Amino acid sequence: MQNPSFVLQDIKKVTIEDRPVPELQDPHDVLVHVAQTGICGSDVHYWQRGRIGDYVVTGPMVLGHESSGVIAAVGDAVTHLKSGDRVAVEPGLPCRRCDYCRRGSYHLCPGMIFAATPPYDGTLAKYYVTAADFCYKVPEHMDLEQAAMVEPVSVAVAIAKTADLRPHQTVLVLGCGPIGVLCQAVAKAYGASKVIGVDVVESRLEVAKTYGADETFLAPFREEGVEPLVHAERVAALVKERCGLGDGADVVLECSGAEACVQLGVLAARPGGTYVQAGMGKENVLFPITTVCVRGLVVKGSIRYLPGCYPAAIELISTGKIDVKKLVTNRFKFEQAEEAFELVRQGRQDVFKVMISGVGY
Amino acid sequence: MQNPSFVLQDIKKVTIEDRPVPELQDPHDVLVHVAQTGICGSDVHYWQRGRIGDYVVTGPMVLGHESSGVIAAVGDAVTHLKSGDRVAVEPGLPCRRCDYCRRGSYHLCPGMIFAATPPYDGTLAKYYVTAADFCYKVPEHMDLEQAAMVEPVSVAVAIAKTADLRPHQTVLVLGCGPIGVLCQAVAKAYGASKVIGVDVVESRLEVAKTYGADETFLAPFREEGVEPLVHAERVAALVKERCGLGDGADVVLECSGAEACVQLGVLAARPGGTYVQAGMGKENVLFPITTVCVRGLVVKGSIRYLPGCYPAAIELISTGKIDVKKLVTNRFKFEQAEEAFELVRQGRQDVFKVMISGVGY
Amino acid sequence: MQNPSFVLQDIKKVTIEDRPVPELQDPHDVLVHVAQTGICGSDVHYWQRGRIGDYVVTGPMVLGHESSGVIAAVGDAVTHLKSGDRVAVEPGLPCRRCDYCRRGSYHLCPGMIFAATPPYDGTLAKYYVTAADFCYKVPEHMDLEQAAMVEPVSVAVAIAKTADLRPHQTVLVLGCGPIGVLCQAVAKAYGASKVIGVDVVESRLEVAKTYGADETFLAPFREEGVEPLVHAERVAALVKERCGLGDGADVVLECSGAEACVQLGVLAARPGGTYVQAGMGKENVLFPITTVCVRGLVVKGSIRYLPGCYPAAIELISTGKIDVKKLVTNRFKFEQAEEAFELVRQGRQDVFKVMISGVGY
Amino acid sequence: MQNPSFVLQDIKKVTIEDRPVPELQDPHDVLVHVAQTGICGSDVHYWQRGRIGDYVVTGPMVLGHESSGVIAAVGDAVTHLKSGDRVAVEPGLPCRRCDYCRRGSYHLCPGMIFAATPPYDGTLAKYYVTAADFCYKVPEHMDLEQAAMVEPVSVAVAIAKTADLRPHQTVLVLGCGPIGVLCQAVAKAYGASKVIGVDVVESRLEVAKTYGADETFLAPFREEGVEPLVHAERVAALVKERCGLGDGADVVLECSGAEACVQLGVLAARPGGTYVQAGMGKENVLFPITTVCVRGLVVKGSIRYLPGCYPAAIELISTGKIDVKKLVTNRFKFEQAEEAFELVRQGRQDVFKVMISGVGY
Repeated sequence: MQNPSFVLQDIKKVTIEDRPVPELQDPHDVLVHVAQTGICGSDVHYWQRGRIGDYVVTGPMVLGHESSGVIAAVGDAVTHLKSGDRVAVEPGLPCRRCDYCRRGSYHLCPGMIFAATPPYDGTLAKYYVTAADFCYKVPEHMDLEQAAMVEPVSVAVAIAKTADLRPHQTVLVLGCGPIGVLCQAVAKAYGASKVIGVDVVESRLEVAKTYGADETFLAPFREEGVEPLVHAERVAALVKERCGLGDGADVVLECSGAEACVQLGVLAARPGGTYVQAGMGKENVLFPITTVCVRGLVVKGSIRYLPGCYPAAIELISTGKIDVKKLVTNRFKFEQAEEAFELVRQGRQDVFKVMISGVGY
Repeated sequence: MQNPSFVLQDIKKVTIEDRPVPELQDPHDVLVHVAQTGICGSDVHYWQRGRIGDYVVTGPMVLGHESSGVIAAVGDAVTHLKSGDRVAVEPGLPCRRCDYCRRGSYHLCPGMIFAATPPYDGTLAKYYVTAADFCYKVPEHMDLEQAAMVEPVSVAVAIAKTADLRPHQTVLVLGCGPIGVLCQAVAKAYGASKVIGVDVVESRLEVAKTYGADETFLAPFREEGVEPLVHAERVAALVKERCGLGDGADVVLECSGAEACVQLGVLAARPGGTYVQAGMGKENVLFPITTVCVRGLVVKGSIRYLPGCYPAAIELISTGKIDVKKLVTNRFKFEQAEEAFELVRQGRQDVFKVMISGVGY
Repeated sequence: MQNPSFVLQDIKKVTIEDRPVPELQDPHDVLVHVAQTGICGSDVHYWQRGRIGDYVVTGPMVLGHESSGVIAAVGDAVTHLKSGDRVAVEPGLPCRRCDYCRRGSYHLCPGMIFAATPPYDGTLAKYYVTAADFCYKVPEHMDLEQAAMVEPVSVAVAIAKTADLRPHQTVLVLGCGPIGVLCQAVAKAYGASKVIGVDVVESRLEVAKTYGADETFLAPFREEGVEPLVHAERVAALVKERCGLGDGADVVLECSGAEACVQLGVLAARPGGTYVQAGMGKENVLFPITTVCVRGLVVKGSIRYLPGCYPAAIELISTGKIDVKKLVTNRFKFEQAEEAFELVRQGRQDVFKVMISGVGY
Repeated sequence: MQNPSFVLQDIKKVTIEDRPVPELQDPHDVLVHVAQTGICGSDVHYWQRGRIGDYVVTGPMVLGHESSGVIAAVGDAVTHLKSGDRVAVEPGLPCRRCDYCRRGSYHLCPGMIFAATPPYDGTLAKYYVTAADFCYKVPEHMDLEQAAMVEPVSVAVAIAKTADLRPHQTVLVLGCGPIGVLCQAVAKAYGASKVIGVDVVESRLEVAKTYGADETFLAPFREEGVEPLVHAERVAALVKERCGLGDGADVVLECSGAEACVQLGVLAARPGGTYVQAGMGKENVLFPITTVCVRGLVVKGSIRYLPGCYPAAIELISTGKIDVKKLVTNRFKFEQAEEAFELVRQGRQDVFKVMISGVGY
């Protein structure tokens, strides 16, 4: 096969099919031989349900977007990369011409071409073409699995940037999945005073403890008959007291998407504090808006990566400030891609990040 | 009577009682002879229900906090004021020593002494003692009614500051009551590109049109059987199209507190846009949190006044950029205070701001 | 002639020569029929001296960069413009791919292609090709001379943005030439509390008074034997006192480039105030650096335009907030271009902005 | 003696004299038994010259302002401290009522009472009275010498805050004296990508290397006949190339006050970069203002401490992120204070920080 590709043919139906090797479209493009690809929840979501919000799969689409690779060809205008260079691939190409792009907010570009977001093909193929400036060379001592992990670390860096995280702040992170624990590690690397990881699953707190969290908090489930917000108030009071947060956390990073965590997070922020929504769950939740008002809170959404997040993530990994290998719990060959997806779908607590090696790796 | 005071004795029970003339507590204090006092929704709320959120009236309390007056005595350390000076009175005194105060966020000071917020007495008396630096001289050509109106204008200025309003932005204001129309006027004075006033009451839109709004939008009520968020999406699409907002407003200022407006406002903001919650209604609302996330929105709460709001409001009024007299629809003598409160309680559409003149005015 | 062009052949030597009509290089390009072009000091500088700093003219170069025009042809990918559209042309094309461009600082792009900055040709020709997103449609009620004036207004908007100008600030503007008076007008439109224009020429102050300045100040020349900084201190004290600036101006905008104004400006800023260097004169000046330190000042440089400045300038002109026609004191035909340049070179006090109409206008 | 005090009687004349134990002036005051005091350049400056800028010593004044101590008595309103508490003492008391104080810029308060800045007495006495909220408890495992070192660390934290230092930035620090090396350590703790220490003295670079600097650069002296700015350009080019700074450092922190360093620093910043003036030397220097303009630089002054710097500094020391003991090279008894001052005056390269223990320590 010239360019074996892992294609979502229809809901719950994936195949490996051969596709032509893609051609450079622009002198600034490069051809990447894909080396390692991590699986993200969104990939599984498209596979199982065929849509995320307004994005609907309407035809065959290659999956995958957390990839590293090796440069196989470069366009005439490319100067900072050459064949053989090992790179982390930022999977979204903005239009560069709209107001958002020109003002430095390319993550909001409505013309964004994002890998494995319909209708655009993803990176789970042997070859992938993209713009050279969205491929970032990694240092020699970083391997290609670490380079693929640059993607989730970039997500965490974007969350921290969105929160405008500052040294000496107390940071409460809701959710201890891959993005949650990476946020904790980023917060610590950026000089946070105290980082607290919250989850409802004890084993995830164990991971958090060995990562960036200074403390962890096992959030109690709501008892029957207790109003959700009353429960949230109680848990917020508990976490403030147990973790010495005084009148609340300076920064709350919500990485679970669970309604109960959204409520807890807002109530656990100190007056004037910042809350960032990064997790995605129910579209609409019961929300303590009056608390936002009277405490003068700042609630922000974080999506994808801001300019500069990929280089920052590479630095965090390459300097050893964040150990991403520890998060890769399962590895599969390209031919086993469906098996890998199935494992992620099951949502087992011992499965953190699942990696698929590319054809020829 | 030495110091006639309008006292909330119990829920729904007010009397005018005589109290001793208050004494200066500190060399930086001044004694103010109160001249004009506007009635705020919160005053009526305490009168009717005895509480707002965690603030519970537990004993007799003088009402009122939107006041102007004339300096009657000054402490030894006061240099910028003298007896006879006409001032607008900022009704909240922060502790000046906590972290919030020292960092310039005195509106979040937990030790704030705020007029007519339990347990602290308000300004509806002949005399009121406060710190000199929270009394602001008004220019000669401003009358004392305008000086009392500095309070609601300051609230609008604080909302605009919280929104970090910039010239050339499109601003959608939800609610066309006193604070809503003042926000529209402030936005216009600050160089907004387009200001749109939204309300469900036609007559309020008429007021908005003669104030700062470039355009108005009559928000349709939800039809039976339509999901609230589906309705909000439709209205958001409608207001974007009708008012030429493209992919949404740069800034949304929520001044109604209505759940439907909160929902509409979040959905009507452009990606990366800012939404400020200033109105207060239900404590918790069904909220499109995933929209906040995927559109990278900034949602902020605004409460009371930030440093500098009072001088800014005085400038807006004294330069004629905002005409506050037009908003004062009803005037009462101090002896008629209860009658004035009753009028506000009724919530008639033709009643905007009700003013009570002080003893001797 | 197909495309008559006003070409700098050598220092002090310009000719009108015929050049081929330029072709679209990219599907996002447009061909502009140039309508009006203002003359800028930098154009005259290249003409007279052949260089500005590191930019050296090494071959023939078309002059001019403050232009408006009418779209004559559009590339296949252009959707927001069509032939016949009247536009203001932003004269710098950034690379869109470097870190500066991606972070929203395209004015700092090292790969910028700027009209009439060597080695790139300018706009003083019949036709000019550029990227569609750097051409901005102007409203019907704006004429093409106003559209050419969008350039200097954008410079003033960029200065105001760099200063992070806020409503209610006091703004001291040094220099009352075209950029100085436009800065004063922008500051006023953005809600400045008080705008003060400073110059050493009385007649320029007269212009400033009819523009945005609330007050003007005629800066006295230094007497012999007085140290420059001692003189600057005296003048700073004088302007603070005369103009009621208290401990200094909130914002100082230096638009003259004169060493004495730089010194005066820094000393006239209030503690914590902002000073923006926009004028260009001597490369190095004697500078009160200790004052910057002990007063906690912010000194910033402003160069060219930031994203969003062109649309902002169009809004300011089209809404009538800034009247640019008043600044155009002299008008020439394309064939008289050298005469127009000669007039600017003379630097007469009654000459503000000189405009050259395009071929066929 | 009741309260032995180290008093500057006249220029170059100091004595230890007995003074009454100071009394609490306010219920929020505390009496501190001074434990350790570091000597600062400004103390020596007043001793030798009797003035710094506008601050002139006109009568006897106790010297010293970098102190730690133990609480000996507390006012009635003090709740967070009690006798016996070990504290770091922030030496400047702002008025709390002016615009600067209210907006969170108390370091710019014109009414600031700063220890050992005329006419206010300093801390080199047995007892010192100050406001409780300017005394910060230190953790048990921090000794009182470390607590005195909180002052210079706070200065470095304020410089970093002024620079708005962000993770992943390259930071060039000019000067490797105590403040310089502390700035390097703070930058590193805050996640800087690369920190470069510059000095003209090799031995200071050795200290920097064992501190926060990733790299050091020995700045060459200017050769005769070379223009200062030409020299600065050459050195700037050299440091950029040698230290891999590309088009310049993201952030430059000037901690020497030397004219050559100011010039080098401005020229070594990348376009759009930030330069902070923290060192103090000549009042006025020859300054590349056009570079500030065309590169869009941000030049800021840093003076004293911003709100929050003391707690931040305590955290940096107590968590071991900054080792301050290493900087204390010489220790003296209170009785030897003049000897200690003399040592600092000599400016020997092996003398970093000199500490004087309090009476009874």
